[in-house]
Amino acid sequence: MQPIIIKVGGSEGIDLDALCADVASLVHDGVPLVLVHGGSAETNRVATALGHPPQFVTSPSGFTSRLTDRKAIEIFEMVYCGSVNKGIVERLQGLGINAVGLSGLDGRIWEGKRKKGLRAVENGKTRIIRDTWTGTVERVNVELLQSLMSAGYLPVLTPPGCSVDGEAINVDGDRAAARTAAALGAETLMLLSNVPGLLKDFPDEDSLIEEVPPAEFEAAMEFAQGRMRIKMLGAKEALDGGVSRVILGDARHASPVREALDGAGTVLLGG
Amino acid sequence: MQPIIIKVGGSEGIDLDALCADVASLVHDGVPLVLVHGGSAETNRVATALGHPPQFVTSPSGFTSRLTDRKAIEIFEMVYCGSVNKGIVERLQGLGINAVGLSGLDGRIWEGKRKKGLRAVENGKTRIIRDTWTGTVERVNVELLQSLMSAGYLPVLTPPGCSVDGEAINVDGDRAAARTAAALGAETLMLLSNVPGLLKDFPDEDSLIEEVPPAEFEAAMEFAQGRMRIKMLGAKEALDGGVSRVILGDARHASPVREALDGAGTVLLGG
Repeated sequence: MQPIIIKVGGSEGIDLDALCADVASLVHDGVPLVLVHGGSAETNRVATALGHPPQFVTSPSGFTSRLTDRKAIEIFEMVYCGSVNKGIVERLQGLGINAVGLSGLDGRIWEGKRKKGLRAVENGKTRIIRDTWTGTVERVNVELLQSLMSAGYLPVLTPPGCSVDGEAINVDGDRAAARTAAALGAETLMLLSNVPGLLKDFPDEDSLIEEVPPAEFEAAMEFAQGRMRIKMLGAKEALDGGVSRVILGDARHASPVREALDGAGTVLLGG
Repeated sequence: MQPIIIKVGGSEGIDLDALCADVASLVHDGVPLVLVHGGSAETNRVATALGHPPQFVTSPSGFTSRLTDRKAIEIFEMVYCGSVNKGIVERLQGLGINAVGLSGLDGRIWEGKRKKGLRAVENGKTRIIRDTWTGTVERVNVELLQSLMSAGYLPVLTPPGCSVDGEAINVDGDRAAARTAAALGAETLMLLSNVPGLLKDFPDEDSLIEEVPPAEFEAAMEFAQGRMRIKMLGAKEALDGGVSRVILGDARHASPVREALDGAGTVLLGG
């Protein structure tokens, strides 16, 4: 049976208790799963409390991104690998699911190149920031994940990833989940966040696009705003990698995974 | 080849770079290892910075212990499983060792009963504290550890453990390492901290006891002060569980593991 890869975001309004109950019920039904999670809102809270608030930079093309300097990646690890990951593993263990929480560093589950520098515009001048710990997943350790799954464990994965040189790198969770889905030959990738799916008229939640056939993907991409652009990019990578469908769903619901499988949200179909 | 279990404490003065370099060199030599670590000093710092400083309670018998309420166990997880565990995994990955960092919750690696309450004396009156998340490891998931090791991974383990009901519980790292050593049939358990070993005249570091044969264990126990009493208790559990020797060594040295294997520190011998 092909696994389902579920990514749940780390934004405000997401109910991890409901998510874990739903995941546990699917696992009890025998569905093979990998869970991937984020942790951005909590990271921002902890980083601010520790006196190192989140920093953002603007690229020459006007795109804003988070600056992950060394202190930031260390706080990121605390929250993603410590608080959020172990919080999810504990919830699942309490529901009788033998979860194993791992970051992309562990066993080099998510390996990729570290970016050499980040071009940032400040006061009209472009400079290169070297103290940045970010990158993109290029290789997934399928053997380790499959060996855990075949032994009955539920992998719960979180950034950071691992650079080729073994450094922690901030990798995008949606795109890492997409890579994982393609590498594991998953049938379905589910990207759950705090919106109903892809909206034709953002932020009007009544303008949900229910289904996107392959021929309409590029056109649908035009509607994606902000974070949804990254999710669509991840979705494209998953579909190109052989995943049959990507579901963009709402993690604020009482039964977020079941509802998404039953057709709530946006379904993006592979070719 | 029987594995070596190395536990490194989380007190001040411990050089994790030196420790990881030493561990990597042994792994490159083909020695099968499991690394266990603490994180108490860093947890105290982060807990204080987040406005929830460490709390201690006194038992009716006069023994002082840390109070791990719900907020404390969550900060504990952030630091032990996030900062310290991933910091060690990253160091080892940078040295070419494919480390996998796991807590005792993951795969129920360290399972045990959660304590129902903590008896504490306050202002001369004894009360029972229920909001305590502590326990003792009773079962080690040997299958998961052996499967990782035989696939070439180095397990890096950290508290918390997992209660029978799936809750996170603060378990003592030295005693968890001892349980792990016995369960894996280890030849050697090494407990490294910021003292040279068992001292006959604490804190005089020149009074190191170099070797303790089985018949002298009870007598040697009399010299143990503070944290060293827990280490000796763990050592006894390991030796009773079939481990050949327990080495109490100094993690402040340049080559702490090699030096301990070469006879620095206190060697406690099994019967």
